[in-house]
Amino acid sequence: MGQDSTKMTQRHAIGVFDSGVGGLTVVRALRAVLPGEDIIYLGDTARVPYGNKSPRTVEKYSLGCQQFLLERGVKLVLVACNTASANALPALAAASPVPVIGAVEPGAAAALAASRGRRIGVIGTLGTVRSSAYAKAIAAHDPSAKLVALACPLLVPLAEEGWTDDEVAALVARRYLAQLFAIDREIDTLVLGCTHYPLLRDVIARVVRELVTHDVTIVDSASAMAERAADFGLRTAANRRTEPGTLQCFATDISRLDELAPRFLGEPMTSFELVDL
Amino acid sequence: MGQDSTKMTQRHAIGVFDSGVGGLTVVRALRAVLPGEDIIYLGDTARVPYGNKSPRTVEKYSLGCQQFLLERGVKLVLVACNTASANALPALAAASPVPVIGAVEPGAAAALAASRGRRIGVIGTLGTVRSSAYAKAIAAHDPSAKLVALACPLLVPLAEEGWTDDEVAALVARRYLAQLFAIDREIDTLVLGCTHYPLLRDVIARVVRELVTHDVTIVDSASAMAERAADFGLRTAANRRTEPGTLQCFATDISRLDELAPRFLGEPMTSFELVDL
Repeated sequence: MGQDSTKMTQRHAIGVFDSGVGGLTVVRALRAVLPGEDIIYLGDTARVPYGNKSPRTVEKYSLGCQQFLLERGVKLVLVACNTASANALPALAAASPVPVIGAVEPGAAAALAASRGRRIGVIGTLGTVRSSAYAKAIAAHDPSAKLVALACPLLVPLAEEGWTDDEVAALVARRYLAQLFAIDREIDTLVLGCTHYPLLRDVIARVVRELVTHDVTIVDSASAMAERAADFGLRTAANRRTEPGTLQCFATDISRLDELAPRFLGEPMTSFELVDL
Repeated sequence: MGQDSTKMTQRHAIGVFDSGVGGLTVVRALRAVLPGEDIIYLGDTARVPYGNKSPRTVEKYSLGCQQFLLERGVKLVLVACNTASANALPALAAASPVPVIGAVEPGAAAALAASRGRRIGVIGTLGTVRSSAYAKAIAAHDPSAKLVALACPLLVPLAEEGWTDDEVAALVARRYLAQLFAIDREIDTLVLGCTHYPLLRDVIARVVRELVTHDVTIVDSASAMAERAADFGLRTAANRRTEPGTLQCFATDISRLDELAPRFLGEPMTSFELVDL
């Protein structure tokens, strides 16, 4: 019985939540780094997006999502949503008996590691940009680094519409990124500060090459979050496991999941269970 | 005392709800038709948009909004949101002791009244188009009328970003409307089947003129809903009132209200009270 309970503990899953399906990019990165770990994913698709809502609402909904994961006995919570990370991480950490990893701090650290000139640009939702969370995280690592952050509200609906590499995507990306580089032409590292933006990586990279002549490194939080999760003593455990981990997905609304989720996960989905929060 | 209680009854407000602030276009139309009526408005801005969510979620949130208005003693409920009207009207009507007016039926009737050739186009959210509510409403009036409905998910975020009459708006409108007129080039009446779309009316009209040579009448539901409300015995009462009616606004999230609300109401806003639903 003692051995069974140890085994049970070892099989506790990693919990990941997001305002929608964009956080599946974090699941994808987790499965690459820690293939043996079980994962429970929750997308708050009934109340998506969080990006243009107030800190109070984002915090309330984020706490509900985390509570759902904690009730399923997760050993670690990953807040895939940048808006939730930027606005609710202190409240989430205070309410959780297990470690909570946000998207902002790993993303900021990855940007600093990539930046030669300490000139960093961040694009994200209104909520992420207004929170100044990236500015604070970067200043905590390197007060001399210079950061410009810009809200790009149309990029999430563009990614969800699937217009990710066409004339509209290029026009919208150009308008936002021209604003960003007009503020600082020397930006050498661009953080995709929203889980949806990796779908637009190609068009963003192309537009950046049109706008400036120097190389700009594009980073996102997903891999950095997965590495951070592995640091919680999981590398060994994952390596010891022989069978691949399971992925269990929940969502608060099921509309368009079949269409959207595989784009972010990068593999055919199993299925989502509908839950009320 | 009998007279006071009569007066109280006469002062019962008209309730209007929407998924966000777009429904203020209906408030604007109501104030034009019934200037003496008091109005209570609720925008479910914490859970906006409804347009890409499932009928189940839309119905659940809509019932919550209506309940909030009923608890404030409204004598009439106007469902400004087309997605809510298209997916939740039967449930709303069943749950309400007072009349409930949706957006779809008045919009369909206005389109039929405007259409010479009975060839009607409707643009709206995914949820509105998938419901087939406009098709059913138009067929109920005139089974010989021909309807084409197209979902245009990017128009709401464009209107909210304020990019309503520029190169991006034209490109996006052209892509959607070209699809619509490719299905039926003889459409002579276009319904703006979402409360956000009147902000894009100019660019939509211009793109339509580029696409077809005949005249296309553009209609929206707001005025038709206000006329329908007046039919509930209110024309006389409103005319008897000398002082202008009050407008009380509630929202479930306050982010960006100061910026967005006046665009839809067409006048400076008073203020919103924040409520939890």
